[in-house]
Amino acid sequence: MTRRDAHTAGESHLPLGAGAEFDAIRRMLREWGSRASGIGDDAAVLDVPSGEKLVVSTDASVEGVHFRREWFSAQEIGARAATAALSDLAAMAAEPIGLLLALGIPQGWDEAIAELARGVGASAEQASCPIVGGNVTRSGELSLTITVLGSAARTLRRRGAAAGDSVYVSGSLGGPGAALRALRDGRVAEPGHMQRFASPRARIQEARWLADAGATAAIDISDGLGADAAHLGRASGVTVELDAALIPCLDGVRPADALVSGEEYEILVTFAATAAPDVQQFAARFGVPLTRIGEVREQDSEPVRVLGARVDPARGHDHLS
Amino acid sequence: MTRRDAHTAGESHLPLGAGAEFDAIRRMLREWGSRASGIGDDAAVLDVPSGEKLVVSTDASVEGVHFRREWFSAQEIGARAATAALSDLAAMAAEPIGLLLALGIPQGWDEAIAELARGVGASAEQASCPIVGGNVTRSGELSLTITVLGSAARTLRRRGAAAGDSVYVSGSLGGPGAALRALRDGRVAEPGHMQRFASPRARIQEARWLADAGATAAIDISDGLGADAAHLGRASGVTVELDAALIPCLDGVRPADALVSGEEYEILVTFAATAAPDVQQFAARFGVPLTRIGEVREQDSEPVRVLGARVDPARGHDHLS
Repeated sequence: MTRRDAHTAGESHLPLGAGAEFDAIRRMLREWGSRASGIGDDAAVLDVPSGEKLVVSTDASVEGVHFRREWFSAQEIGARAATAALSDLAAMAAEPIGLLLALGIPQGWDEAIAELARGVGASAEQASCPIVGGNVTRSGELSLTITVLGSAARTLRRRGAAAGDSVYVSGSLGGPGAALRALRDGRVAEPGHMQRFASPRARIQEARWLADAGATAAIDISDGLGADAAHLGRASGVTVELDAALIPCLDGVRPADALVSGEEYEILVTFAATAAPDVQQFAARFGVPLTRIGEVREQDSEPVRVLGARVDPARGHDHLS
Repeated sequence: MTRRDAHTAGESHLPLGAGAEFDAIRRMLREWGSRASGIGDDAAVLDVPSGEKLVVSTDASVEGVHFRREWFSAQEIGARAATAALSDLAAMAAEPIGLLLALGIPQGWDEAIAELARGVGASAEQASCPIVGGNVTRSGELSLTITVLGSAARTLRRRGAAAGDSVYVSGSLGGPGAALRALRDGRVAEPGHMQRFASPRARIQEARWLADAGATAAIDISDGLGADAAHLGRASGVTVELDAALIPCLDGVRPADALVSGEEYEILVTFAATAAPDVQQFAARFGVPLTRIGEVREQDSEPVRVLGARVDPARGHDHLS
């Protein structure tokens, strides 16, 4: 955990100052306990298991852009930001080895630092990921930029799907999209939908199971099933054909809405037709379904096609309004 | 380089939208050319040389907190942010293997994206560090959160200095502090001072030379020589005794001011008295001096003491005003 002094204190921004900044770090470390390790030097020092690749991703969550303060508790904000980052490791079937949090903290949020840290810590704990470093700075809006490091002997990629492969998705979709729509309309979201929106999980163990079972390609669903299937189709040079009737939806969600529900952090994955995964074993082990929802075709004009739904599957969930 | 859709577009924040966001990424990739590698999956995949440790650090630069827009060009802002992060690798004597940029871009900065990227790219190039990933999001203020990864067979740490060791510093100090004072007073900074403030260098190669020469402990000077000497003294359980008359200062800088000049990114380093580094060879090789400025003492009441200067050496440069 490093600090660098701020020196441009003006009207709109005040640096935390040495005392307050170290205070913030101390408060976070108190929350994290033994989950934080090796903090206090200029950089963290980690081991990557011999013979494994290093996998790394960075992801920002900004107040007013990625979330609104009134939608979530500070703990949920911290947990969601960490899950969003950790989910990129899941998409690659990597084992987490470290998380770094760069926190931008505006006036008025100081009291929430411990709760934010608790949320980050809970997601890190769930992913068995130590917290190895970070940065705290005063800023005009709350932001959590989280970098995650992982290792893998064999990574899953977006490329790798081939014509004839089957397409599967973990979990039940549509909760975040439905909750978001309700909140933006000023309605109360269904508890089941809100739970998925406020407290998603990174499918770290699930993805490693899928990789071990022989998956050919994978992506995590952050932009929405349709948009992420398009990313995978484009990277693999194929057309992903989804069957709307097969998409696993939460109660009260239509397939067309599930297709554009983002921040699911479920895993979209492909398998050779001759090497289907054991969906019963998956469900028994992880408590969520693994569902076959389509097939990979030779590339045609579109990277994704949906049978039985009249939607533009590639539109992201930022175009809902 | 990943993107995650924004969905809370309101009055004060507008998401880039898929088009503009990908546009921003494309513009950056065009600037970086072959310096960027492996971008486009959920995470980057890197190799850590067998038998070496992974070293990682994250650092945020926020407009209005760490810099003012009117002080620097966009290219300088990008270069400084990357140098600040890379300097943490230098402090550990690590070899850079990857840099990730999380860019928060407010309205009005879109046109400067290429220039910001050029600056980040120039610092990465100087450090022989590939750019391996990142994140772009709309935000209320410009922020660059940069994560750097490196590897090292043997890392230098803040701890490791022992009583009797000699204390050295690279370069000539005081430029950033003097330039900052001038700018805050509304004066024009001396060109030599401004050059050090606007275009610092991460001492990557220098630090590896120092480690190979047998350095016992090191830290990069971001908070100021006095404050960082205190960090090193505290971590090593010693008192660092500096001699003000020995501190290498730029023209027009007094030792007392050099002690509190931050964002120098020079290296403060200790050596056993019996294993002094070849300062002539260092200067010839790197074009900057390596100067003996003090000695490590048994720990007493303070982690740092300065002979011949009536200052509080541990005060950071955020307390200048």
